[in-house]
Amino acid sequence: MNFEGRIEKLIKLLSNKGLDAAILTNRSNIRYFTGMRFNITSFSILFVSEKGNIVFLVPTLDYKRVKKDCWIRDIRQFPEDNPNYLAPLKKVLSDNMACQIGVEFPAISIEGENLIKEVTNAILVNIDNDLLTLRSIKTKEEVELIRASAKIADEAMTKALESVKEGMREYEVSAIALNVMMNEGAEGPSFEPFVMSGENAWLPQRFSSKKELKRGEMILFDMGCILDGYCSDITRTFSLGGLSDEQKELFKIAGEAQKSAVAAIKPGISGEDVDKVAREYIAQKGYGKHFPHLTGHGLGLSVHEMPMLDKGFEVVLEPGMVVTVEPGIYVEGIGAARIEDMVLVTEDGFSLLTSAPRDLIDIGR
Amino acid sequence: MNFEGRIEKLIKLLSNKGLDAAILTNRSNIRYFTGMRFNITSFSILFVSEKGNIVFLVPTLDYKRVKKDCWIRDIRQFPEDNPNYLAPLKKVLSDNMACQIGVEFPAISIEGENLIKEVTNAILVNIDNDLLTLRSIKTKEEVELIRASAKIADEAMTKALESVKEGMREYEVSAIALNVMMNEGAEGPSFEPFVMSGENAWLPQRFSSKKELKRGEMILFDMGCILDGYCSDITRTFSLGGLSDEQKELFKIAGEAQKSAVAAIKPGISGEDVDKVAREYIAQKGYGKHFPHLTGHGLGLSVHEMPMLDKGFEVVLEPGMVVTVEPGIYVEGIGAARIEDMVLVTEDGFSLLTSAPRDLIDIGR
Repeated sequence: MNFEGRIEKLIKLLSNKGLDAAILTNRSNIRYFTGMRFNITSFSILFVSEKGNIVFLVPTLDYKRVKKDCWIRDIRQFPEDNPNYLAPLKKVLSDNMACQIGVEFPAISIEGENLIKEVTNAILVNIDNDLLTLRSIKTKEEVELIRASAKIADEAMTKALESVKEGMREYEVSAIALNVMMNEGAEGPSFEPFVMSGENAWLPQRFSSKKELKRGEMILFDMGCILDGYCSDITRTFSLGGLSDEQKELFKIAGEAQKSAVAAIKPGISGEDVDKVAREYIAQKGYGKHFPHLTGHGLGLSVHEMPMLDKGFEVVLEPGMVVTVEPGIYVEGIGAARIEDMVLVTEDGFSLLTSAPRDLIDIGR
Repeated sequence: MNFEGRIEKLIKLLSNKGLDAAILTNRSNIRYFTGMRFNITSFSILFVSEKGNIVFLVPTLDYKRVKKDCWIRDIRQFPEDNPNYLAPLKKVLSDNMACQIGVEFPAISIEGENLIKEVTNAILVNIDNDLLTLRSIKTKEEVELIRASAKIADEAMTKALESVKEGMREYEVSAIALNVMMNEGAEGPSFEPFVMSGENAWLPQRFSSKKELKRGEMILFDMGCILDGYCSDITRTFSLGGLSDEQKELFKIAGEAQKSAVAAIKPGISGEDVDKVAREYIAQKGYGKHFPHLTGHGLGLSVHEMPMLDKGFEVVLEPGMVVTVEPGIYVEGIGAARIEDMVLVTEDGFSLLTSAPRDLIDIGR
């Protein structure tokens, strides 16, 4: 990865916004610029000045590893559990006069803000969206990693669905998929995989329970993994057979809505216009009130990032963006259906990154 | 669980601190008071006034489920992806005059703080530590859940270690343990399980890599799960045989330091005094500079919570607290060793909650 090129873009951003420096703590941004992975219980701080000074502050426990593996030369350590852990940052700031500092507002807590204010009088400016915009267009190298991550999710989904049978519990299906992903070298799931069957699907529950799978239910399975930092995300709807005509109709409508929205993807179309394709199709079929979420979201180093395919999102799609497309229908007493694929925006349209079987009305055995 | 009793304690806390209300967003606190589990990508808001008004604000997608399952009567929904999602909270605040509001400073981002300030002029007061203190003493019911979570971690550790052999990759060992935990009905891992072998152990790396396990290396495995919300956390150090005397010595010192610290646990001793037992033992053996982290931490609905067993933590242990004890030694070019167990503070001392085999100098086959 061209980390230096990314930092150059960040410095240009600071310059354009009249900022003297950036203090970054969001782990996806940290990984984007440094290449470093951290355990979920730890965090680190990246300082970049508009003049090009780069200092990477990491917990003492990570110091040796980062020193060995990271391309950045000025690595400093701070004591993780010490109330005075920001002392090294104080030193950096006193060496780099800054009046306006870019930070990620959603990543810094009030506690963190108070600590930063103890070490600097600079005005804090939110650059979260600018960084998400930077990250939203993927390089070929990133697309290959996302493609590989999607391939593992495909394989996990396929293996899990091949193993499903009546009486199996929701969490057992999740476990099969997770096991495939971990054995393929995934760093972990991109979120807790969840199987939702029957009532759990139309609620929707959004996690796997101990409930047993039955015939006559619509069953959703949503999951993905992280491979070398990059996330995948895929959903399939299936049944063990015995669906009513109304349930089959839901299945069909969700599938058609998704296919139409995918087909609409090309450079120049806005996120809200892609959303509209799915939303209008579902409304026209009489289920408008039963589609309570967005049509899709970007993904990369985070599982939810820009661009969003939803009402109010005017951002226009560009080649190199990667999004999910996942309109869903949830009807109390009947069931729920959602097909989610990952889609790359190409020069002249789109390319599907996930391909696990979609036509799963009856996989019972 | 006696959720009403917990809310009563919160109300008493507000009253004692002269606060009119609390706005909680930390997911462990939300689960503690409401019993509700949420997908990692979603969040919710619990409002509790000192007068006893309780309003639980949840994303539209979770509304039906929470309405069905939660003991709280006033459940309201907000649109997750809508910039105006705090409008329902605004309504709650205009119905409940509040001049001083307790919030969790580490949980609310600058963005969240700005949104709250848009809907209220109230002064925000940090009650994070008070809530952690409330949660630090576990009821019998909670201890049973933690014990069950620890039992699954024990089983996963044991199965993984039984399967380990030369040439296996670090992440494959993690995958075995994770698979056991998921099939036992765990909600997920309490953190990404990690195996660190050879150089990765002494760095320490804190995640599993693709590195193959070899004879002559010291290998650490740290992992745990979440069962019905409650976390477990256990570490074992092992080798596939062929250790040098110096490596064996590290192994022995880390084990003895841990055993001494565990034995010191009883009501009335402070976190820093338990830490001192391990730290002084290791220093006395000449490895003081090679123990770069805390001796232990509380755990419950969060994997790291109060009390801490570390320098500067004067909090005194009480019956019902649950902590890990995990002093570690990391020596460049040699190896690393750490044994971590979960310990319940009892009326007259301590009780170990984890029991997977600890004497693992040679498990090679």
